[in-house]
Amino acid sequence: MVSSADTSRANSLPETTYFTKPPVDGEFVQVDKIAWQPMPEPFAHGGICWKLLHVSPELGSWTAYFKCPAGSHFSAHIHIGPGEYLLTKGKMEVRGGIENGGETAYELGYGYEPSSARHDHTYFPIDSEFYMSFVGPLHWIHEDGSTVAVTGWKELQDVWLQQTGIAA
Amino acid sequence: MVSSADTSRANSLPETTYFTKPPVDGEFVQVDKIAWQPMPEPFAHGGICWKLLHVSPELGSWTAYFKCPAGSHFSAHIHIGPGEYLLTKGKMEVRGGIENGGETAYELGYGYEPSSARHDHTYFPIDSEFYMSFVGPLHWIHEDGSTVAVTGWKELQDVWLQQTGIAA
Amino acid sequence: MVSSADTSRANSLPETTYFTKPPVDGEFVQVDKIAWQPMPEPFAHGGICWKLLHVSPELGSWTAYFKCPAGSHFSAHIHIGPGEYLLTKGKMEVRGGIENGGETAYELGYGYEPSSARHDHTYFPIDSEFYMSFVGPLHWIHEDGSTVAVTGWKELQDVWLQQTGIAA
Amino acid sequence: MVSSADTSRANSLPETTYFTKPPVDGEFVQVDKIAWQPMPEPFAHGGICWKLLHVSPELGSWTAYFKCPAGSHFSAHIHIGPGEYLLTKGKMEVRGGIENGGETAYELGYGYEPSSARHDHTYFPIDSEFYMSFVGPLHWIHEDGSTVAVTGWKELQDVWLQQTGIAA
Repeated sequence: MVSSADTSRANSLPETTYFTKPPVDGEFVQVDKIAWQPMPEPFAHGGICWKLLHVSPELGSWTAYFKCPAGSHFSAHIHIGPGEYLLTKGKMEVRGGIENGGETAYELGYGYEPSSARHDHTYFPIDSEFYMSFVGPLHWIHEDGSTVAVTGWKELQDVWLQQTGIAA
Repeated sequence: MVSSADTSRANSLPETTYFTKPPVDGEFVQVDKIAWQPMPEPFAHGGICWKLLHVSPELGSWTAYFKCPAGSHFSAHIHIGPGEYLLTKGKMEVRGGIENGGETAYELGYGYEPSSARHDHTYFPIDSEFYMSFVGPLHWIHEDGSTVAVTGWKELQDVWLQQTGIAA
Repeated sequence: MVSSADTSRANSLPETTYFTKPPVDGEFVQVDKIAWQPMPEPFAHGGICWKLLHVSPELGSWTAYFKCPAGSHFSAHIHIGPGEYLLTKGKMEVRGGIENGGETAYELGYGYEPSSARHDHTYFPIDSEFYMSFVGPLHWIHEDGSTVAVTGWKELQDVWLQQTGIAA
Repeated sequence: MVSSADTSRANSLPETTYFTKPPVDGEFVQVDKIAWQPMPEPFAHGGICWKLLHVSPELGSWTAYFKCPAGSHFSAHIHIGPGEYLLTKGKMEVRGGIENGGETAYELGYGYEPSSARHDHTYFPIDSEFYMSFVGPLHWIHEDGSTVAVTGWKELQDVWLQQTGIAA
């Protein structure tokens, strides 16, 4: 099946690697028992804190819980894959809020943000908390759309492990 | 490229269908503004109610919010794909609870249930509420592992539309 | 945050388990170097063979390569999640073929089968081969729609390991 | 459930939007019946052509078929989500090839490239063809890791529609 131009095949054929894989383990986090960590600039402003709850390295998805003081906001970003949130406390203005064509969520509010959703303005007018699961990274952008950073499960896990002292 | 045994190709070659697809829309549900619906037997017992928040027909994922009175429980089921929950109120014993090798979640608790997780006993000793996102259907089973039903996003959307009167 | 009805919390609060996860490894299989194995009845008829190429335990997806002699067919099944195939050789009639409202694929043909796609008749009129990736299990059914079996990545890996002698 | 600081709620509570969704349609492409299009620089070099076979806007996945002349190569990129390929013709050196710690695939070869896989050197020493399905975008990078572009299903569909004249 190999072209005659390739005379080196017999000698260099790679070993086939085949993996026998176990099922993935379940996980549990008693959320109120773990400490808040600050979400670093330039991603968040006004004292937003987070707890990383889960990462899925295979698909690249991850889940976190956020605490957002009155007046805080996230920097502009694109959701590379879909995300789902549950606002458990307070009020969140997504994409500028309902007055500007976006959504204004109140406790208890659920939202689905599709792949490629661009969030220029995510603002919390009162003390708020929300849970969110993400598929893929966040693509943080400047106003002109150019890249600030692409932060996926691995980068976020690294930050979390450093903040919590799990990784020395 | 076609075998000479296939003489009918010239006449029957199918048209290529090609779809130009728009991005998926975002969604928002003000959860406290929609009415509870009962989870039907034989899936739930003791007065469990639900609100269907989202379905994703492409991947087959779906998201719901559940209210579980003290003493209620779910029937035995397997999570065909992974699921993630946030217990927002009360106490939930998963896989028999921590005394039996499973988990006991308290408010505010997060859990990741992997693909193929089998939940024989999910019990709520006190009034509880939880949010959960699912990839793929639930496979409801008898004690011997045989199938009661396989309920995916489509079957669940059908139940919800009927319960809420959206579908006549 | 816990109901006063729950007096046992202080003593029984579960440990939080948190996992530090490595990236997933890449894989490579030189497909022509591994042996064909028979697809067992009652799933396939007429001498269909397969090679399992990959399983993804986290999402429950899997990938295989199939060889289907002239006259062979698969039993009726539902794709629980989406699947994509590349017919690399021959001719495949899906859902009864184009004469019956389904598809007839010729080499080189690509198809996307959505979540919940039901395939009552998948037939190979000439010697054929195809590659297919699947999200989630196949739900094999009787003519009346009742369950024969639900075969996911784990069941299929178990069959493959046994057939190839990797698992004793 | 709403903080007393939020006095505007009664007037501004958003409408709940709820979508009744149909199943996703199946698709079929007779691959040899559609024309090759050039992969544009700066992504590919040496005459690489492609056929876009499928996009999945919900998850952000997509599938394509590539023809790579002897001596062609792809620019450096990161797979944001997992990808799977089937080399149907020729020889492909991934991550520098087996001599440099990567893989060298021969027809018929299958590979799984995990989320976050970085491919600095993907080279085709002989005329080659491969099929590949991708979850999420490709993140094209300069040698120092900085971003050239992030190309997902939407950007790729736009290029394809323009190249094929489907979009005016």
